Parts: sequence; structure tokens; C-alpha cells
Amino acid sequence: MNEIFELHKNGKISVESKIKIDNSQTLAKVYTPGVAQVVKHINQNIEAVKEFTIIGNTVGMFTDGTAVLGLGNMGPEAAMPVMEGKAMIYKAFADINAYPLLLNTTDVDRIVEAITVLSPSFGLIHLEDISAPNCFEIFDKLVKKVNIPVFHDDQYGTAIIVLAGLINSMKVTKRAPATSSVVINGAGAAGLAIARLLFAYGFEKISLCDSKGIIHKSRRDLNKYKIEVLDLTNNQDTAGTLADAVTGKDIFVGVSVGNALKPSMVEAMNTEPIIFALANPDPEILPSDLPTNFNGIIATGRSDFPNQINNAIGYPGFVKAILVNNIKTIEIKHFIQAAQGIAGVLADSELKKDYIIPDVFNKNIVPSVLQSF
Amino acid sequence: MNEIFELHKNGKISVESKIKIDNSQTLAKVYTPGVAQVVKHINQNIEAVKEFTIIGNTVGMFTDGTAVLGLGNMGPEAAMPVMEGKAMIYKAFADINAYPLLLNTTDVDRIVEAITVLSPSFGLIHLEDISAPNCFEIFDKLVKKVNIPVFHDDQYGTAIIVLAGLINSMKVTKRAPATSSVVINGAGAAGLAIARLLFAYGFEKISLCDSKGIIHKSRRDLNKYKIEVLDLTNNQDTAGTLADAVTGKDIFVGVSVGNALKPSMVEAMNTEPIIFALANPDPEILPSDLPTNFNGIIATGRSDFPNQINNAIGYPGFVKAILVNNIKTIEIKHFIQAAQGIAGVLADSELKKDYIIPDVFNKNIVPSVLQSF
Repeated sequence: MNEIFELHKNGKISVESKIKIDNSQTLAKVYTPGVAQVVKHINQNIEAVKEFTIIGNTVGMFTDGTAVLGLGNMGPEAAMPVMEGKAMIYKAFADINAYPLLLNTTDVDRIVEAITVLSPSFGLIHLEDISAPNCFEIFDKLVKKVNIPVFHDDQYGTAIIVLAGLINSMKVTKRAPATSSVVINGAGAAGLAIARLLFAYGFEKISLCDSKGIIHKSRRDLNKYKIEVLDLTNNQDTAGTLADAVTGKDIFVGVSVGNALKPSMVEAMNTEPIIFALANPDPEILPSDLPTNFNGIIATGRSDFPNQINNAIGYPGFVKAILVNNIKTIEIKHFIQAAQGIAGVLADSELKKDYIIPDVFNKNIVPSVLQSF
Repeated sequence: MNEIFELHKNGKISVESKIKIDNSQTLAKVYTPGVAQVVKHINQNIEAVKEFTIIGNTVGMFTDGTAVLGLGNMGPEAAMPVMEGKAMIYKAFADINAYPLLLNTTDVDRIVEAITVLSPSFGLIHLEDISAPNCFEIFDKLVKKVNIPVFHDDQYGTAIIVLAGLINSMKVTKRAPATSSVVINGAGAAGLAIARLLFAYGFEKISLCDSKGIIHKSRRDLNKYKIEVLDLTNNQDTAGTLADAVTGKDIFVGVSVGNALKPSMVEAMNTEPIIFALANPDPEILPSDLPTNFNGIIATGRSDFPNQINNAIGYPGFVKAILVNNIKTIEIKHFIQAAQGIAGVLADSELKKDYIIPDVFNKNIVPSVLQSF
């Protein structure tokens, strides 16, 4: 068995007892009869459940396994190693307890109902690796039904890090959001959230492309989520291909497929372009395929190149801030606060074209995000 | 804050990472890109999910909080400290991971549906502290819907220990099941399961009483679960009070309310009677209230008297045996195997009237149960 399978043997997480139970005095305090005192107290003061149980610092992480990594629909069981990995990262980086939970249906209403029934168990609901557009519908319905915050990492988890990276990239290339033009390629969970978040942050010139090219008002093949973001993007209502879209633009953000961005397209962009090629494992353009005279910034999702845009930089600190501050409903301003917190980990004097985002192991990320709230 | 609340601060369990994530080499193995190998393997071989994730050794523990300890309907949130206590015991005694999950409904079909949707997440479903008769209906429906074993601790968890204790009590008092008469007082979750398990083990003379007295064919106030056990109990179809029921009988098992068994009733029982007075915290009869010439065996649910009948003796080893042996459907024979395993922890030579069941901290319980499978 290779080392990776060896590391996965019997799972990568465990549920542990915080108190050693080895004598009847302890057992009588943490279990019956002593526990009855705490039961009665919570029954009388429901909010005390956050103080005297695991719930206040616990995330229910749900997937139906329909959009696992770049692998697509692998089913819920096969999604589990990724879910455990996410739970490990929650613990290692933000000391949050996360239960990975697998859904044996892809039916939106059944998923919403099951999570709603289970919702008292958690401080926050984290949706993961659910394919678009189901993930949007599940999210919208859940937010109306449960009393705890709902977070979809594939949407705003990615968007937070993209904004954090862009904040620093704009400092390095002396740009401002209102005057910088952005092309987002990919109109799935991440692409739509990035469009919304960048607009909320102050970007005014955003184009969104899907596999058919620029999303514009005359297209008849748009789902309602793509139609919604038309209000925030493409204010010139331009049609065209991705190559048309990027010509003369400042920023490219790819959350699409490998090799979507050709070297000739990079050459057609504005001077010192900012390119976030985030498709995994093959980015929209490899750093080694950039034109030889490239003088901009390139970031990818990969750890073997500089400027790794990794969700693990974002969700642990963001969710910790939501839990610690007892925030009931996540708003777009919270994503901006988190992005600013992450960007601010690097001092202006440290910023360079190949250092626009902190390393995932930087211990200042979570404290900086917490401080930005 | 008193010590009990101090011990409960932020909960008594945690989700931990088994592998330290502090460098990108490790992260690349337990998370993307390395994890993709394991995802693809499980996608191709669904059973491998038990080998390479936490699932095979994980229990989903569900409650709606309607029957918490002896406190009754406290709601799901207030049930959490008990659920965490059960999870601690799972870990400490049998190295099983248990997630406590709270249901925000008492509707049978909504509970069944939610647990069914979540079922791929676990190796076994454990129902806890759900009031009768809902718990029976939930159990019966779940067993038909999910592909993993379902265990209701309040039924057979208790019944296993009762049978284990009776096996040893009968050795001490030289009785055999077929010729020993038993009165069970209490026809809720535990009482009905005890009746079924004792019948399956070979007891032929069983009477079951509820708060209205002996359950017999002419009663018109019986729910379908009480009617079902009429086939296994009261084969003389006798009517009467609890006092009538126990007269001349060998064994009394109380899972009812404090002080239900009067000293005069004990005096009316057969010589060397076996009395399991398991109501908590006040047993059906206190050892100190027994007639002065009492020469039988008394067991209670309390740790401050000898012979404690404690669920924690049973469910960790029983569930471990089900998981380890990959048993898909729990059958009554498995409860008998577990009871024999627990009873067998004590050698015949060790058995005494005040030592008929191993202490909950006895480290041989789980190995003995595993060996009995």
C-alpha cells in the first residue's frame, strides 16, 4: 500500500473525549447523575447549549459528492476523504470541530429537509462539493429554514481568497478596484460568488464568461443564477469569446478548466496583468506557458508555484470569526472583512509579484481575520 | 461555577485530526492533490469507504430529546450533555467515534427521512433518549430504509445488561431460565425489549406489568407494541396488580418508577428472589428497604450500591462487535451473544450475591463481548 493510502487507513479524523473516564467519580460528573444539572440548565436557558456543549464550536459539513475536487460526481462515499481533509484543516488552523456528513440523495428538497432537521447539532452549516446549480438552490432554501449561519465553501470560500489576493495584487501593480477591469472565466459556484463579491468590494468593470463566451443579456441559455449577476457585470452588454473579453483588461480570474487561457490572450491584456488561473490540477495557463515578456502577477491553486490561492487559507478563519462573534446570518460584508484580514497578514513592504497571499501555514491568518471582524 | 459545569465548558468531546498538518508535503497527501487517489479508489470500490475513512468505526447517535435520563422531554439541545457523555464512553471503552446529532422534530417520518439521508456517513445508527412509542416506530421504519445496522440503546442496550446480570444471578441461585418465573415492571422501551430478549434466551414464564397492572389479553388499553409481546408473556393470561404478579415468582425486573416494589411484595416472592430495581435515580426498592430476612440478589442502576446495571457496560462492546464483524442487520441472537460475553467476564468462582455483573471499568468487558461473536 502506498503512503497516501496508509495515511488514510481508518480515516484521518477521530472523535475524542476531552476528559479521561477511568473512575466512577468522574463518570458520575460527566454522565449520570451529574450531567442532569447541565441538562436542566440548558432546558431552561437554550443559549447555554453553546457554552456547555461542543455545539458552539462545531460545524456540520455536508456533501452529496456531486462535485468533488476537479473529479466531478463521485458519489457521497468517495467524497469522504476530502471531507475529512477539510475537517483536519478546520482543526489544525482554527481549532474548530467539524463532522463530515454524507447525503445519499441529490434531491434539493430532501437535502434541505435533512439538514434542517439536524441543524440544532451545530454552530454553522458548511456545504461542500455540491454541484451547481443545485448548490445555489440548497443554500437559498436552507438560509430561510435554519437559525444558524450557512456557508458554502465552493462559493464564497474561494471568493474570499481571490479578493484577498486581488487586494494585494492591486497594491503591487498600483490599481484601484473602480478603475480595474476584471474577466472571470467560469460561471459555476465559485465564478458567480467571485463576481458578486468583487462587485460588492467596488469593482465596476466585471465580465463573466462561461464555456459559451461572455454572459450578456441576449443569450437565451442562461440559468437564473447567471441572469441575476447580469445586473453586476457586463454593463456595456458586450457579446464575444473569452479572447474578446480579456483584450485590454487588467485582471483575469479563472475558475474553469485547464488551458482555457492562451498565451496570445495574455499578450492582448493590459500591461502588468493580474492572472489568477485557479483550475485544478491544470490551471487555465501554466506559469511556464506565459509569454516570455510577461511582467504581471500569476497565481494558481497549486502548491508547487508561488501565490497559491488555497481555500484552506480562508474558510477556517472565516468560520471561526462567524462562530466567535455569534453571527446568525452571513452577509457579504463578512466576506470582505475576511478578505481584508487575510490580505493584511502581509505588510505592504513584504508584497511582491510572487508574494501576494500568505502561505497556508502562516499562523497569523486566523488572528488577522478575527481582528478584522 | 461548580465543578460539573466547569467540566462541561465548551463540551466534553472534540473532533481531532489524527495526522499533524504542518507542512505542504503532508497537506498534499491528506488533502489535494493526493487525496484524489483515495477518492477514485472508493468511487470504484464503495466498500473501501470503511477501510480508508472514519466511517467503518463511526456511530451516528440521534436524539429528539423527548426522554432524557429520568427527566423526560427536555428538548434536543438539553439532551446534548448526555449525548456527549455517551460519545465519551464509546471512545473510552471501545475506541469508537460517535457523533451526537440532535433532531429538531418529534415527527416520526421526518426523523426517519433525515437519518436515512445521512446514513452513508456512519457504520451504525444509534437511537437514544427518544420516547416510546415513537422510538419503536422510528426503529422499525429505519431498519427497512437504511443499509447499516440500527441500534436503540434504550431498548436492547438495557436488555443486554439485564440478561447478563440474570445469567450470573441464576448461576448463584442455581436456577434455569425455562423454570424461572420473571415479572417485568414497566412496558416502555426497555421493558418490552427485556421481555423479548428473555423469551429468546429461553425464559418461558414471563409476566409484563405497566402502571395499570399485568398486561393480559382482555385489556383494551394496550398499544400495538404491548399487544405484540402478549405472544411471549403471560401464557396463563392472568389479570391482576403488580403485587399479584410477583407473588411466588423468582425474578423481578423493574424499569419503571421509584418505590414501585414494596417490602411486602418482596416477602411474597419465591425464596432467594432476584430483584433488579433499575429505575433511576430512585430504584423500585432501595436495598435498605428490603425485608430484614432478605436472602436473594438485588441489583440497581446506581453506582453507590453493589451490582450496578449500567448501560455503559453494554453498548460500547456490543456496537464494536457489530462494526468489527461487519454485521448488516442486528438480530436478537447478537444481543444474547453480547449478554453471554458480559456475564462471562466474571468466573463462576468469583460470583457472589453482591457481585453478579462486572464493574463498568472492567477492561475485559469489550474483549469478552468481541470473543462471544
